[in-house]
Amino acid sequence: MDNCSSKLDFAKSGGLIPTIVQDAETKKVLMLAFMNEEALNKTIQTKKAHFYSRSRNKIWLKGEESGNFQNVKKVLVDCDLDSILLLVDSKPACHTGHYSCFFRQLNNDSGIKEIEKPVFNPEKTYKKKELKK
Amino acid sequence: MDNCSSKLDFAKSGGLIPTIVQDAETKKVLMLAFMNEEALNKTIQTKKAHFYSRSRNKIWLKGEESGNFQNVKKVLVDCDLDSILLLVDSKPACHTGHYSCFFRQLNNDSGIKEIEKPVFNPEKTYKKKELKK
Repeated sequence: MDNCSSKLDFAKSGGLIPTIVQDAETKKVLMLAFMNEEALNKTIQTKKAHFYSRSRNKIWLKGEESGNFQNVKKVLVDCDLDSILLLVDSKPACHTGHYSCFFRQLNNDSGIKEIEKPVFNPEKTYKKKELKK
Repeated sequence: MDNCSSKLDFAKSGGLIPTIVQDAETKKVLMLAFMNEEALNKTIQTKKAHFYSRSRNKIWLKGEESGNFQNVKKVLVDCDLDSILLLVDSKPACHTGHYSCFFRQLNNDSGIKEIEKPVFNPEKTYKKKELKK
């Protein structure tokens, strides 16, 4: 099996490639996270999204605590091979309980305003008291 | 006017925040680029997307050469305040002539495959011979 992840430009961003996650059905952008080459290989092999946590310095499987795994339908790459777009099935993505991590709007007159309400209670969903992304 | 860009966490990624650009109408993801605080402020003030080029070390106005300015409808921010999502009007985004920069799919069996064709000729659109992102 060709290890196609090696074609991407991981060096440009110090080993980590920004990865957009989009709902394949509704086209809603759910989150942005980072992948190193191992996370991308695990994602391709398992068809479940894996990322690299910059704060915890390790690979994480999205959904490992919440159960909201992201089943990957397509992996797209950009023109410069330094960004990734995952198309995934429909699941809430945010550790705050919102469907998308992008639930707030920035306005210069009113500051930051929540424009979407949570769809689940994160305190019940996450096993640990300290919520993680 | 409140300078709301100061609420974002630019420090986390060395001053640059990854910014997703999405077509407000079709919901297609067009590109990913980076913003520093000045680029975000210019974007908010002018309602045209500005980014920070890591290769050229300067602010750039998207469309300054191609004419395909991105008129910004909404600026969304993520849960950790370290990613931005711009919703823009419908314009081709990629310096290769494709509508979206994400025109290739990654498959482990067939490698990287183009799944969308260009919609314009970049040699005619860009003034300089050396194409820029």
